[in-house]
Amino acid sequence: MANKKDNLTAVLYTVNDLRLEQRPIPEPKDDEVLLQMGCVGICGSDVHYLVRGRIGDFIVKEPMIMGHEASGIVAKLGKNVTNLKVGDRVAIEPGVPCRKCNYCKEGRYNLCPSIFFCATPPDHGNLSRYYVHAADFCFKLPDHMSLEEGALLEPLSVGVHACRRANVQLGSVVLICGAGPIGLVTLLSAKAMGATNIIITDIVQNRLDIAKELGANHTVLITPDLDEQSVIKSVHKTLGTAPDISIDCSGAESSIRLAIQATKNGGVAVLVGMGAPEVKVPLVTALIREVDIRGVFRYCNDYPLALEMVASGKVNVKPLITHNFKLEETLEAFETAKTGKGNPIKIMIHCLQKG
Amino acid sequence: MANKKDNLTAVLYTVNDLRLEQRPIPEPKDDEVLLQMGCVGICGSDVHYLVRGRIGDFIVKEPMIMGHEASGIVAKLGKNVTNLKVGDRVAIEPGVPCRKCNYCKEGRYNLCPSIFFCATPPDHGNLSRYYVHAADFCFKLPDHMSLEEGALLEPLSVGVHACRRANVQLGSVVLICGAGPIGLVTLLSAKAMGATNIIITDIVQNRLDIAKELGANHTVLITPDLDEQSVIKSVHKTLGTAPDISIDCSGAESSIRLAIQATKNGGVAVLVGMGAPEVKVPLVTALIREVDIRGVFRYCNDYPLALEMVASGKVNVKPLITHNFKLEETLEAFETAKTGKGNPIKIMIHCLQKG
Amino acid sequence: MANKKDNLTAVLYTVNDLRLEQRPIPEPKDDEVLLQMGCVGICGSDVHYLVRGRIGDFIVKEPMIMGHEASGIVAKLGKNVTNLKVGDRVAIEPGVPCRKCNYCKEGRYNLCPSIFFCATPPDHGNLSRYYVHAADFCFKLPDHMSLEEGALLEPLSVGVHACRRANVQLGSVVLICGAGPIGLVTLLSAKAMGATNIIITDIVQNRLDIAKELGANHTVLITPDLDEQSVIKSVHKTLGTAPDISIDCSGAESSIRLAIQATKNGGVAVLVGMGAPEVKVPLVTALIREVDIRGVFRYCNDYPLALEMVASGKVNVKPLITHNFKLEETLEAFETAKTGKGNPIKIMIHCLQKG
Amino acid sequence: MANKKDNLTAVLYTVNDLRLEQRPIPEPKDDEVLLQMGCVGICGSDVHYLVRGRIGDFIVKEPMIMGHEASGIVAKLGKNVTNLKVGDRVAIEPGVPCRKCNYCKEGRYNLCPSIFFCATPPDHGNLSRYYVHAADFCFKLPDHMSLEEGALLEPLSVGVHACRRANVQLGSVVLICGAGPIGLVTLLSAKAMGATNIIITDIVQNRLDIAKELGANHTVLITPDLDEQSVIKSVHKTLGTAPDISIDCSGAESSIRLAIQATKNGGVAVLVGMGAPEVKVPLVTALIREVDIRGVFRYCNDYPLALEMVASGKVNVKPLITHNFKLEETLEAFETAKTGKGNPIKIMIHCLQKG
Repeated sequence: MANKKDNLTAVLYTVNDLRLEQRPIPEPKDDEVLLQMGCVGICGSDVHYLVRGRIGDFIVKEPMIMGHEASGIVAKLGKNVTNLKVGDRVAIEPGVPCRKCNYCKEGRYNLCPSIFFCATPPDHGNLSRYYVHAADFCFKLPDHMSLEEGALLEPLSVGVHACRRANVQLGSVVLICGAGPIGLVTLLSAKAMGATNIIITDIVQNRLDIAKELGANHTVLITPDLDEQSVIKSVHKTLGTAPDISIDCSGAESSIRLAIQATKNGGVAVLVGMGAPEVKVPLVTALIREVDIRGVFRYCNDYPLALEMVASGKVNVKPLITHNFKLEETLEAFETAKTGKGNPIKIMIHCLQKG
Repeated sequence: MANKKDNLTAVLYTVNDLRLEQRPIPEPKDDEVLLQMGCVGICGSDVHYLVRGRIGDFIVKEPMIMGHEASGIVAKLGKNVTNLKVGDRVAIEPGVPCRKCNYCKEGRYNLCPSIFFCATPPDHGNLSRYYVHAADFCFKLPDHMSLEEGALLEPLSVGVHACRRANVQLGSVVLICGAGPIGLVTLLSAKAMGATNIIITDIVQNRLDIAKELGANHTVLITPDLDEQSVIKSVHKTLGTAPDISIDCSGAESSIRLAIQATKNGGVAVLVGMGAPEVKVPLVTALIREVDIRGVFRYCNDYPLALEMVASGKVNVKPLITHNFKLEETLEAFETAKTGKGNPIKIMIHCLQKG
Repeated sequence: MANKKDNLTAVLYTVNDLRLEQRPIPEPKDDEVLLQMGCVGICGSDVHYLVRGRIGDFIVKEPMIMGHEASGIVAKLGKNVTNLKVGDRVAIEPGVPCRKCNYCKEGRYNLCPSIFFCATPPDHGNLSRYYVHAADFCFKLPDHMSLEEGALLEPLSVGVHACRRANVQLGSVVLICGAGPIGLVTLLSAKAMGATNIIITDIVQNRLDIAKELGANHTVLITPDLDEQSVIKSVHKTLGTAPDISIDCSGAESSIRLAIQATKNGGVAVLVGMGAPEVKVPLVTALIREVDIRGVFRYCNDYPLALEMVASGKVNVKPLITHNFKLEETLEAFETAKTGKGNPIKIMIHCLQKG
Repeated sequence: MANKKDNLTAVLYTVNDLRLEQRPIPEPKDDEVLLQMGCVGICGSDVHYLVRGRIGDFIVKEPMIMGHEASGIVAKLGKNVTNLKVGDRVAIEPGVPCRKCNYCKEGRYNLCPSIFFCATPPDHGNLSRYYVHAADFCFKLPDHMSLEEGALLEPLSVGVHACRRANVQLGSVVLICGAGPIGLVTLLSAKAMGATNIIITDIVQNRLDIAKELGANHTVLITPDLDEQSVIKSVHKTLGTAPDISIDCSGAESSIRLAIQATKNGGVAVLVGMGAPEVKVPLVTALIREVDIRGVFRYCNDYPLALEMVASGKVNVKPLITHNFKLEETLEAFETAKTGKGNPIKIMIHCLQKG
């Protein structure tokens, strides 16, 4: 049973100053639920805040609770809540929009300018024992899904959103640039959506090996000696055609250039990865071939599909978890994430106390 | 009546070597018509071939007949032709695709890799007295439309295609970068499609004045002293909001940057202008705001709408014509286009002989 | 100035028992505004409730306040409201959805199963002196728009939604069946969206005359002696082609049949009108020609465009108002609506007290 | 080797008068190939022509060669043909459009009013030893695909087109009405496109058993005693929700009614089956719930995906073939199709001579 007095919480005070401390257990408002936290994955952005204290205009000015790739167990209901009951295990979609602006009303709530988003300054995250969240952004897990899988719906939703923006369909031929966590969930999503020919690139062979196990049809190791045109030709030759869709998950200028140039005439290049603010790109080559370039910001209405993908067995996300830590070991977990020791893909922090 | 022996033709031999010479009058094949040429406009690409001998990979290696913005009168029918009759006045869509590849079958024939396109090496154009063309790419003009208007459907179709790619709708707020011929036809198209708030930029005041007359709600003169952020802010302030859609018609890096950055979250930036092969752009700012970037290659199924726009009176293209020449004066016409003397917008060459 | 004690209100007790009575002035909640009501139009559904006491499964079981085509003046702000200020004149979108279900999140809030909707049992309307409403469903009118125009945005939004569902574009050829209020706002919307050839039918010549004044290109008087095939042929002949889009605004079986059969291959038939629950239709003829059949339920994200259409002068809705009454004359107004005396198109009730 | 003098051909003279006779071997035109026929499936429409002599306005007035679900081996190339070589095994898309009308140019060539279509009067089919066809409508089979599978791409393409019109996606919940050949290929297509919850109905248990083997999640036997509302409720209960998409493959009025009513608000009902010209349907219930109703006419750009589905192993069409006959046994094959003896799903005729 849960200790209802313990709310151990991971708080980032400032650059490289992450602390575990007790915080009061919050009360759910009318449309919220109190969650006993289950699993919380570490995302690249978490590490970024830890090391740099900022991402673009989002700056950690006040101590901020970490964590946004999360699942939990409903511990208490706000008085209006009807979609959940105490004891339900749920995946937590970490962004709660204003529900009133045009973006919200038009179904693109990820673009809501006043969205609350876990662990994006100044909004607190949920790497803690207890946390309250809007009930309609908690998705009940079926019995056969684990809390680990629930937490992994967050990165998986990014892959789903990228593939939907790219319009991946049955039979699509897809190039994915980068085989990090986002590249891998994009791979899983593209396969589940029916792509029959997927090639994935990386600069690390180990990641490509995992991608192969997860279902990539082809892999390309990018080495410093390769020139751009050779890589493009090699991608085309290996696929037997130019890809309908390219999805860059690395943010590197060379990857963006590859995505834009390798895509077939009239195709789509989706750029998920965040890289340098300014890039030098051969835009004309894309434009006169009517290759559309589309960005991706988080996800929007993608949790239900991500959940269905895992629940139906179409996708197995478990192999993404390479390291596990208890909430008490959070500093160690982040150290592993920072150093990359042991080649982590996804590091999972377990917040539930056993016994 | 036409002199059936005269087929005076404008042939580009090599850089800056444009000649008028007699060529045999061709015979239409079964699905073609012979056209007595009416009007032919001069396009920026024509001047480019004249001065440089190439555009990208398209190189003038053999003498090439110029002209692709054209209209004419049906003089003879191929034996299968039923959609036209002798004497019909028609606008000529200059690209005839293969009709058999996937692009053609899927309705994106502008991307057909083996399309014939007037005055794009090695394909000949129609700046001549007589010319044969696929009958189904000749569009009959109603009686109240002139041959000049028929020729102007070519650039107008570029504007239509750009606005369709941008999904301009009733009520759209639109930024157009560049007020040259393509910027102006894009302006006319955007207005006809219902845009209620259009701002247009240029570095030449004269062009902005014409844009204003053609219906732009606001104009912005871009001067060297303006910094990027000021221009963006000024656009937003003048419109009262960020544009839903930005359409770059200049190809200049600064314009592309403006289009990408000024567009509202979730909007569309369409790039029509062809500029330097490589540009430095703040892609991340567009991508995390889900601003889609789309290119435009010529047009596709746009002639019927361009024709309807002029025929219905929704659009008046006549003010675009600033200079007129006879076919015999072709060298003079091109000289004017090259030098820009008299601030030409659209130079029209008249191929019909009077009397 | 408003009398802050008077809240005269039109309440439907049961069939044909409509009463004017005083009700308490309500207090706005945090996200609401109190509105001093301006104008309220009478809709066919209001008359339906008056005469029949029900529409389908919506049954008047308790006394219900009438009115949903409305505008007003902000009298008091809930504490969270920032988008409006006291004194703002606003159009009132009468449906406020739950904001939490999938339909709301996906941008189709008109399908929200728990939407509040004015004057649809058991939800009260706003035919009264004072009324509270969600602030984000109140749209500020520019100074040059009247409260009458504000109220007319409600039916206009139905026309906008129908034309959007039909994908009316610049150059569309459109058949509209029925020239009642919904047919006329659909006509105005279709014209504003760029339809260049519109034909409208009705069984009453007077309505067709108004349609002609409002911009219909052609009208067809449907008389009992006309057989179905003749009407279809006549529509095709008059338009010079089959319509791209047909929009039935009458609900009559014969009109639905006309819409389905007259539409061109691959076109769209939108059915706005509500008629008999069961209809006999030649579905096969539509299906093998891939004519899509789409319904319309109210509107969704259409108020902003309806407002822009009127504000920009693209559409003039004022001619729709044929009769005016004061709030005190509500029973008379409904009598006129019921009997149709004086051929009313839109009857407007004025709730503001002068002086 | 083929006997180059034998061109045994199945010709329908009039109702119930089908004959095998020798016909001259045709010569391919420039863009055509001569095919030695491989396999030809019998379709419901073939039987319809045999028994009734007509389908709607298509009437057998002159002797017509049967067969349109076919595959073959390239025996000779027209002089322009470059996409194939002699000996290639191909699936034959039986419709060849005009390539010049707006439907063709816009990518909806199935709606081309002058399309040639095998075994649709007055166009001849390919149930023969030799046949010529447009080279670009012949799709080369990979080595691991059989001629039987090639012939089955024709009905499979109908399923693909239906599912594309319905927008079946990963995670879709789908109701299919009717488990005949078209219902089954629609089932296979829907599963391949990612539908995770499919229910299929029929009035014959045997067909439902096959559907279950082919991957249906649930089946419903429709019996005469069931009333409409019970069936709808049963479908919803079994699926755990209303289907996103319903696809009627039977044409029966009761099935169409089920599809329209069972679909969730805002969903899509696709009607593939051709039934009575007039049906009585509860249209209002679909329309006010914004359930779109879409028809299907053959297929369009669907062969490449159908081929990829089989080639990639996503779909196994072989179980559909229940009966096999030689070309010489054509009359017997049609007798089996007519009587339904042995519960045939797909009857395949083999045209190649062995030895």
